Amino acid sequence: MKTVPLTKVTIVSESLLKDEIIAMIRKRGATGFTLTKVEGEGSRGVRASDWEGRNIQIETLVSSETAQGILQDLSTEYFESYAVIAWLSEVQVLRGEKFVRTGE
Amino acid sequence: MKTVPLTKVTIVSESLLKDEIIAMIRKRGATGFTLTKVEGEGSRGVRASDWEGRNIQIETLVSSETAQGILQDLSTEYFESYAVIAWLSEVQVLRGEKFVRTGE
Amino acid sequence: MKTVPLTKVTIVSESLLKDEIIAMIRKRGATGFTLTKVEGEGSRGVRASDWEGRNIQIETLVSSETAQGILQDLSTEYFESYAVIAWLSEVQVLRGEKFVRTGE
Repeated sequence: MKTVPLTKVTIVSESLLKDEIIAMIRKRGATGFTLTKVEGEGSRGVRASDWEGRNIQIETLVSSETAQGILQDLSTEYFESYAVIAWLSEVQVLRGEKFVRTGE
Repeated sequence: MKTVPLTKVTIVSESLLKDEIIAMIRKRGATGFTLTKVEGEGSRGVRASDWEGRNIQIETLVSSETAQGILQDLSTEYFESYAVIAWLSEVQVLRGEKFVRTGE
Repeated sequence: MKTVPLTKVTIVSESLLKDEIIAMIRKRGATGFTLTKVEGEGSRGVRASDWEGRNIQIETLVSSETAQGILQDLSTEYFESYAVIAWLSEVQVLRGEKFVRTGE
């Protein structure tokens, strides 16, 4: 089956940033995302003690250029003040051409 | 530690396809899977508005041949009518030999 | 944006091992983790029939050396008696230098 190489951006943050981050990734060109409730604990002492999760994980499949834009915004807007982590993975997406916006 | 290179197939779909997709990946040779409730929103206007999630994410570790078979079935059986996305990642699995069925 | 190549270790296990596994990965050098409730079914007959999940997925971003130590501990302490699976993925982490403990 034909697949398209794309970059998966994974962002883990406090739940309160959910709407802001979704708006930002859409502005940067993401055509969709999945959101998962997670419990997280990191080096900055962030802690979600209740099982239902005060943290979220957002994943989106984008071009490498869009991925870089998302990392840029995360870095300048959130990293100083919030517990946000983000990483990139290379994946092969079925019918991945639909995930890249044309004309950006 | 010895690890085995395998392909991780990730499928995000509407919850109603859960049993069908699980049956399909097993038929194709998957020996196990994990299932996560997610909230998703994509380019086709699919929307899971309630937090508990009307979407699921299924992940399975398989050989590259099995991965191709799974993508084939997803493409021919679901992509036209349902909001399904799927992608492949290359991973290194501890005791991964158990994940590949012999005699397929 | 500058990213750091790190290894993501994903561990899926029965929920009862949660605290033990978290303590182990911290001892091995992980600085944080995310925990997700999942439903799983594998070749060893493990089954989480209720939707809320009796299984957990733990993910942590570490150096390749720390990843090997974690796999070692999983292999010697859990693989014989418990339904545990684990795999490694290569990822690019924003401000990833914070995830590697110095002086280990």
